[in-house]
Amino acid sequence: MRFSSRGQVDPFIVMDVMEAARAAEAAGRHIIHMEVGQPSTPAPAGARAALAAALENDALGYTVALGLPALREGIAALYGGWYGVELDPARVVVTSGSSGAFLLAFSALFEAGDKVALGEPGYPSYRQILRAMSVEPVGIPTRPENRYQPVPDEISEDVQGLIVASPGNPSGTMLGKPELSALMGTAQARGISFISDEIYHGLHYEHRAVSALEVSDQAYVINSFSKYFSMTGWRVGWMVVPEDHVRTIERLAQNMFICPPHASQIAALAALDCIDELEANRAVYAENRRLMLEGLPKAGFDKIAPPDGAFYVYADVSELTQDSRAFAQQILEEAGVAVTPGLDFDPHRGAQSLRFSYARQTADIVEGLARLQAFMAKHG
Amino acid sequence: MRFSSRGQVDPFIVMDVMEAARAAEAAGRHIIHMEVGQPSTPAPAGARAALAAALENDALGYTVALGLPALREGIAALYGGWYGVELDPARVVVTSGSSGAFLLAFSALFEAGDKVALGEPGYPSYRQILRAMSVEPVGIPTRPENRYQPVPDEISEDVQGLIVASPGNPSGTMLGKPELSALMGTAQARGISFISDEIYHGLHYEHRAVSALEVSDQAYVINSFSKYFSMTGWRVGWMVVPEDHVRTIERLAQNMFICPPHASQIAALAALDCIDELEANRAVYAENRRLMLEGLPKAGFDKIAPPDGAFYVYADVSELTQDSRAFAQQILEEAGVAVTPGLDFDPHRGAQSLRFSYARQTADIVEGLARLQAFMAKHG
Repeated sequence: MRFSSRGQVDPFIVMDVMEAARAAEAAGRHIIHMEVGQPSTPAPAGARAALAAALENDALGYTVALGLPALREGIAALYGGWYGVELDPARVVVTSGSSGAFLLAFSALFEAGDKVALGEPGYPSYRQILRAMSVEPVGIPTRPENRYQPVPDEISEDVQGLIVASPGNPSGTMLGKPELSALMGTAQARGISFISDEIYHGLHYEHRAVSALEVSDQAYVINSFSKYFSMTGWRVGWMVVPEDHVRTIERLAQNMFICPPHASQIAALAALDCIDELEANRAVYAENRRLMLEGLPKAGFDKIAPPDGAFYVYADVSELTQDSRAFAQQILEEAGVAVTPGLDFDPHRGAQSLRFSYARQTADIVEGLARLQAFMAKHG
Repeated sequence: MRFSSRGQVDPFIVMDVMEAARAAEAAGRHIIHMEVGQPSTPAPAGARAALAAALENDALGYTVALGLPALREGIAALYGGWYGVELDPARVVVTSGSSGAFLLAFSALFEAGDKVALGEPGYPSYRQILRAMSVEPVGIPTRPENRYQPVPDEISEDVQGLIVASPGNPSGTMLGKPELSALMGTAQARGISFISDEIYHGLHYEHRAVSALEVSDQAYVINSFSKYFSMTGWRVGWMVVPEDHVRTIERLAQNMFICPPHASQIAALAALDCIDELEANRAVYAENRRLMLEGLPKAGFDKIAPPDGAFYVYADVSELTQDSRAFAQQILEEAGVAVTPGLDFDPHRGAQSLRFSYARQTADIVEGLARLQAFMAKHG
């Protein structure tokens, strides 16, 4: 039993942070979690109630591969409400989380040996999934003056794909419509497949995020119930593809997944009607963000990306350390605050950056900021 | 947005049968479903109750990538009870169905361009997932005298992997320990990665199935809660890998899936304790099988593979048709029984075979057999 080379992907450094935090807690310490990339809230009450009812009445066998028709319709309707875009439900593919959407997209669009451009810093699994499928990720070192988003003249000539994320993880920054249009126009002109990761849509605080579908149908748009809908562990997401790609994706989904988890689809369908609870969650994030934008600079973390959306603040700590991993470990040990070193998101410059998540409850944010301020007063 | 060549996988023909059956029902006809590859029973009551309780008390966020520790322990314990094999829970990887296990296994073991041998007839998604990952499936035309299972001298010299399934789908035939040992010995001697699909284990009627782990630890063993545990739509399965492969699989799983669906893991954990209900399901299959073995030959379907396990009977219908797809369509139209043409399972000889599933309730089997006998009396 030999290993393939493509199967040897990088470890997640954040997992080491989480394990160190868990060990500290097991040893009796109180830790504030600013490392986690998920809401602490459960699925909305209405979603859980709908599943509880289905457990009594439904065998919950396989669904069709593209997902429950009512769920596809409900997702399509979101595009009307959120962006004023009329979307045919036939173009909506329910997936096993956004992870499943990436596996489908990369299979459908890229050959082994193809190259795909993506901004750094960015979600680490893009590059790892690409590698596992024998596709080469090509990092674009994005610039603070471009809100840590790629711009057209940074896309090299020899790529077959481009992935963008707005709001981004870890940056939280968004692409405006002109910037997104410029990227999509360049991709289309060059025959580059365009993938828009919109998983943090719904979690914005000043202006709403722009969907690629407001610009053009020539994109794969990926989203999920994990973030705004507070359903990470349910593994249900979706992808919108051009009309002439639906049949190809359907065949791939039948074989690679059979279907997304049925119980999760039932819960997701009901979650679409739980907007009051979800907006209350968002109000908590908004207050957390306000506290972070006030408290992090006070602590000395003042070189931060514009936190337009999601629930992250990405800080340049190059004046404080050249080893973000050791620095994060020190913060955990001395301040009792778990934060994520930037290395997961940016293999090059991540040694000089940290990601702070504000997805937890506000009391935790207040306490975490106080600890960070005390820590930095001592060391900064 | 261009398509990759590897994304262009074959359609499932059974989906056309299911759609035709659905259309017939919508038109008011009564159809007996012998085409479906899943139990009609829901998850066990204890599994559903456990999830209902968790919905009240647990946020159900991400689990660790390899799955809930208690579930990994419970699965490891199964190997003691089922096979007398002591298995370290650390080697158990909970997956998003067996589908997720195949995606992980193929990434970890095979490069783009590698070749993997598999028996024909066999589960169609093996070859489609391999293709989507740029790995070339190499079909072995298995022989009735070998119970439609591959034998060592049929494995070509140039393959990097071998997939076997016992009980097989569509054949229902099993590999005895000597036959399995011979295949594994050949694979090990030649440095071929060995994947054992054991998804139908638990569903046997005379002798129990043999696990590859009874022979050697040098295998990827894939199983699922879908069949014996009656939880198809939940998308939760597992894979046992050699100890030195766990870390590689963990990294891949973190990136490709994040985690298996949390709610499904809760239900699966409780399902391990629902053996009475599951054995009652198996008693229904056993009775159905008895009826099929009596009734199918009476109807004229007498060239069948030894149906050792699973819930299928695979019939050679070469004396009745050279076009199993048209024949299945005729059976649906005239007899009101949906059956699966063999083409999904065997691209070469499947035009002369049919798969009959006996996963439904016994009354359906009785009625289906009566209809098949009447149909064949008219045409056979």
